Amino acid sequence: MWKPDRSSKKPMYQQIAEHVERSIHLGEYPPGSILPSERRLAERMGVNRSTVVQAYEDLRSKGIVESSVGSGTRVSRGVWKHRPGLSPNWRDYVQGGTFAQSLPYLRRIREVLQERPAVINFASGELSADLFPNEQIQRLMREVPFEAHLGYDDPQGYYPLRETLVGFMRQELGIHTTESSVLITSGSQQSLFLILQCLLAPGDAVAVEDPSYCCSLSMFQSAGLRIFPLPVHEDGIDPEDVGTLFRKHRIKMVFLNPNYQNPTGTTLHPDKRLPLLNLAAELGIPIVEDDPFSLTDFEGTPPPSLKSIDEHGTVLYIGSLSKIAASGLRIGWLIAPNSVVQRLADARQQIDFGLSVLPQWTANAFMRTGMLAEHLVFLRQALARKQELLIRSLEEELSGEVQYTAARGGLNLWCSLVRPADDLKLLEESVKRGVIYTPGAVYGSGPGFLRLSFARPPEGTVADGVKGIAQALRALHL
Amino acid sequence: MWKPDRSSKKPMYQQIAEHVERSIHLGEYPPGSILPSERRLAERMGVNRSTVVQAYEDLRSKGIVESSVGSGTRVSRGVWKHRPGLSPNWRDYVQGGTFAQSLPYLRRIREVLQERPAVINFASGELSADLFPNEQIQRLMREVPFEAHLGYDDPQGYYPLRETLVGFMRQELGIHTTESSVLITSGSQQSLFLILQCLLAPGDAVAVEDPSYCCSLSMFQSAGLRIFPLPVHEDGIDPEDVGTLFRKHRIKMVFLNPNYQNPTGTTLHPDKRLPLLNLAAELGIPIVEDDPFSLTDFEGTPPPSLKSIDEHGTVLYIGSLSKIAASGLRIGWLIAPNSVVQRLADARQQIDFGLSVLPQWTANAFMRTGMLAEHLVFLRQALARKQELLIRSLEEELSGEVQYTAARGGLNLWCSLVRPADDLKLLEESVKRGVIYTPGAVYGSGPGFLRLSFARPPEGTVADGVKGIAQALRALHL
Repeated sequence: MWKPDRSSKKPMYQQIAEHVERSIHLGEYPPGSILPSERRLAERMGVNRSTVVQAYEDLRSKGIVESSVGSGTRVSRGVWKHRPGLSPNWRDYVQGGTFAQSLPYLRRIREVLQERPAVINFASGELSADLFPNEQIQRLMREVPFEAHLGYDDPQGYYPLRETLVGFMRQELGIHTTESSVLITSGSQQSLFLILQCLLAPGDAVAVEDPSYCCSLSMFQSAGLRIFPLPVHEDGIDPEDVGTLFRKHRIKMVFLNPNYQNPTGTTLHPDKRLPLLNLAAELGIPIVEDDPFSLTDFEGTPPPSLKSIDEHGTVLYIGSLSKIAASGLRIGWLIAPNSVVQRLADARQQIDFGLSVLPQWTANAFMRTGMLAEHLVFLRQALARKQELLIRSLEEELSGEVQYTAARGGLNLWCSLVRPADDLKLLEESVKRGVIYTPGAVYGSGPGFLRLSFARPPEGTVADGVKGIAQALRALHL
Repeated sequence: MWKPDRSSKKPMYQQIAEHVERSIHLGEYPPGSILPSERRLAERMGVNRSTVVQAYEDLRSKGIVESSVGSGTRVSRGVWKHRPGLSPNWRDYVQGGTFAQSLPYLRRIREVLQERPAVINFASGELSADLFPNEQIQRLMREVPFEAHLGYDDPQGYYPLRETLVGFMRQELGIHTTESSVLITSGSQQSLFLILQCLLAPGDAVAVEDPSYCCSLSMFQSAGLRIFPLPVHEDGIDPEDVGTLFRKHRIKMVFLNPNYQNPTGTTLHPDKRLPLLNLAAELGIPIVEDDPFSLTDFEGTPPPSLKSIDEHGTVLYIGSLSKIAASGLRIGWLIAPNSVVQRLADARQQIDFGLSVLPQWTANAFMRTGMLAEHLVFLRQALARKQELLIRSLEEELSGEVQYTAARGGLNLWCSLVRPADDLKLLEESVKRGVIYTPGAVYGSGPGFLRLSFARPPEGTVADGVKGIAQALRALHL
């Protein structure tokens, strides 16, 4: 016989109400028939009578059952007719499942961007449309004959693209690897998702930079991980903090963005890198190096990535075209030991059966023809100029009111308010003035921080955007 | 103080061994120092002494500790030097995580296909390369100007493609929907994955056809679902069986492939469809209608899909270009209530941050220009012809030894052996003879069934492939 599930998050009265409702619709209790007494049902289900009282009350409020003094509880006569639209209760289904929902701030930002496409957007950490290699992509689609196979792809990704990446990573970033250690993914996001889901188990402890992009990722929550913060200083995290977290919490993995960290723009000091790698190797814990920005270095000379000096095979390296070419290509890559790549590729077959060959073919052509290298020269100059423009506006409108350190790469300027202000109110006041940005709280930082993406808004709108934020701040401080 | 986790799957001695090893590498016990006695450590950890004995034995076998009678257990002097390649123990990481690994038969098939690309392939349920619309895709990439935005896409997918699909589904299959009820996915696989992960919780009961494609999907396992079978008869499943499973197991969802079911090729009788929909609506459980094959109907007149006659909004419809155009495009779609589509789209952002715009743009151009409609005419004729060819070979080589019913659509012929044979041996004997197929066991059927995909091998190889299977069968029956 059915009984309520005591380990369920759903209250027992609700489980019982739903069970009775189902039994009615299954015909076990026809319209007008008398239901078991509260006392009897409570005994059968092994619950307190008050729980059944509450369940019947719930059904009564929905018009499914009726009761009158002395005659017990009956199935409503019109119940089969009245049930509003026979169909699954989608609300219940949608609230189930194992994926955590996005953070409220992020949902709010997405909402504003959808409803007000003209808003000045310092929020999205991506390039503006004029920084995408639109013409090059159009040209190569027109001119390079498409000859890739249209069947299912290799689970690790399109082989020619992996070949190209091996050469590209060696030449541009001094990373030595082989085709069998590369997994092509749908952007960095999918690399991270696969690592969390395949190499870690719910309850595992991991260390992430504080503040960091990772804190904004519901996927850490969805994976049921325990997250411990590594404070980010001006020269990045301290390796000793990794040791401390390991001794205290047995962290199983460390997530870092060493170059032009998102959101702070800081860079892990080169002198800290080898000690960090040696410690991680000694402890036997992998470092996930998320590296979206090295190739945006305004001078073209980023500090050496952890992967390029990793002697122990401790680093899982994540790269992507999203921040250096076009996010809509959805091309990223993971460089990892082959056993890891194979495991992740196998799991990915369950999720999406591999990537489309079209963006992989396009990315390969884009890199092989030298278009990417050419585009990077243009992009670096454009980003440096856009940051300058933003800083000039900040000096004009908010001099003495915000602090920041100019970034040497990446897409973001991290600002802190000199006088504190309510994060949510400042965001809403700014939205009223037609401008949006990402509050630091999204990345787990305390109040009074703003991440301004200088890459996203068109150059002509930056000054007005900063004015909007300045006015919002003043409105709050009145 | 650290103690072993009694709820972990990892044996306690192993946890203790790893803990001691870590402590050594953290410097708590320098090389040459004496470790706690077995008795003392057992007390501290709250375990039997024999568990610690086993842990020390494990460490001894790895050369990390040494012991001699009377002087207890010491850290080996060379331990820091000798530790083979300081680095994470990737084997341990790779075996963790929440994704189930693929089934052994499927892994074996993938292995054979990788190692012996010349094998005659009746195993892969996909089109042969000459049935892909290669020329059309090449032509449209060359000739249709690519003007889509290269930034992040709408989480539900490229709007123009959703518009096109709304018209296409209405015209081709009589399904009425709107753009807001369509989610573009990476093939049917991703639609299914999102449904399992977002609308169901571990422990939920679901009903799937028996045999069916679903049984081969490790993703059902990964999602922790309890699976109950709905027997597939010549005219499909029986709606009453759904009611029975609901009463017995409270199934929360039903997974069906009503037209040209994979693997049996059967079609759910049209007279069973409305009763099934009414029952599901009454019980309040969604039906997931996986419909990869309707558009391959050899006559172009498939039975009406469940979605097209669904008055209650009970059906989640899954379509895809994989089996009717090209699997490598990775374009599928889900038609569902908007609340469901939004929930799934939000979760997908965590997994891969949405689909690449390139295959979506390509699919849209392919459909809008009428290329797909034209391709379908060609494809239907080709599939009918290829099935005829396979049946002719079966009649010549295996007359009286296999039974089957010719399919009227889809890509597969479902065969049963008249005399039983060992599934695994028959597969390996066939592989030896240069031919591969999918044993029915992959789909949860008993022994003696073979799914032969007639779509996959080039026409010229079919006769030799069937000969190979016939010889394999005879070798077993000797």
